Amino acid sequence: MKILVVVAHGRANSLTRQVAEAFALSAREKGHEVEVADLVKERFDPVLTEVDEPDWNDPDKTYSEAVRREMARIERNEATVMVFPVWWWSMPAILKGWIDRVWNHGWAYGPRSYPHKRVLMIAIAGNGRETYEKRDYDKAMQLQLATGILDYCGVEDGRLETLYGAIEGNDAPNQILHSASALGAAF
Amino acid sequence: MKILVVVAHGRANSLTRQVAEAFALSAREKGHEVEVADLVKERFDPVLTEVDEPDWNDPDKTYSEAVRREMARIERNEATVMVFPVWWWSMPAILKGWIDRVWNHGWAYGPRSYPHKRVLMIAIAGNGRETYEKRDYDKAMQLQLATGILDYCGVEDGRLETLYGAIEGNDAPNQILHSASALGAAF
Repeated sequence: MKILVVVAHGRANSLTRQVAEAFALSAREKGHEVEVADLVKERFDPVLTEVDEPDWNDPDKTYSEAVRREMARIERNEATVMVFPVWWWSMPAILKGWIDRVWNHGWAYGPRSYPHKRVLMIAIAGNGRETYEKRDYDKAMQLQLATGILDYCGVEDGRLETLYGAIEGNDAPNQILHSASALGAAF
Repeated sequence: MKILVVVAHGRANSLTRQVAEAFALSAREKGHEVEVADLVKERFDPVLTEVDEPDWNDPDKTYSEAVRREMARIERNEATVMVFPVWWWSMPAILKGWIDRVWNHGWAYGPRSYPHKRVLMIAIAGNGRETYEKRDYDKAMQLQLATGILDYCGVEDGRLETLYGAIEGNDAPNQILHSASALGAAF
């Protein structure tokens, strides 16, 4: 399967990048092809302006060239995996804007559905699972991201996997990378 | 009171801008001073890069000049009002990135709190209230934005007000503008 791995962290040695690489390595070992979309490095502009506003009366609206380029990159793959740090119980702005602009009306929802049946979001959380569960942040993220975006866009096999505790304890990054490899091997 | 009104929509005649203007007009009539931060027009860059990553060991870290300029703009005011359309059950990327970058460790949370005691988020929702309540999107937004950002940053009088149904029925925009005026008058 051809997988587009979308990475949303600017620092070259960030845990997010390492997670993406660990996932990709396992997925390739299993026989998948992996293409990486490194949004910060590519200087993707996450700000939706008038040219990319949905026209509710026209599901065939032609979006900007930058957006059409992203749509084409998705369309030449068969699955999407987003890898991002949790900032404020959601995605970083660069990935939010990739959704805002590219997962647009008439292409990802409305009369059509997102082109891929399988989409995985891998969220890397600084805090441990208990911090999330205490206030139901885990449920709110599932609702916003898995239900509100993936289900909304008709993705049949859509999942949000949160890898917890990135900054809690010395061994946490290794455990997270181990989980990322396992996700790649199971994909 | 000096109020910073932060607007997150690029189109000049957008309902978001009109809501911000209606709020500002009422607030000024009541005697408040209003300064407008028009993030899209000002070309604020919402992408957090290494220079603005929090250093958990240094709450006195010096952030980038762009971020310090935003902090100074907030500090010369006494309250913050954010006005934005709901995109994917949350904020547009430009405002998410304003939070990601400016509401940073050591300045808005950690050993210090956000400089303002009063912060209002005015979210403009295309769908009606029942669409939100059906799946608990309203509760998830309260948790992510009001609890997860405002409470987290020690804002004593922090609120998220969602104005529903912007694209449902011909009279909806007028009702939303009426609500925005009322929020300004009550501020």
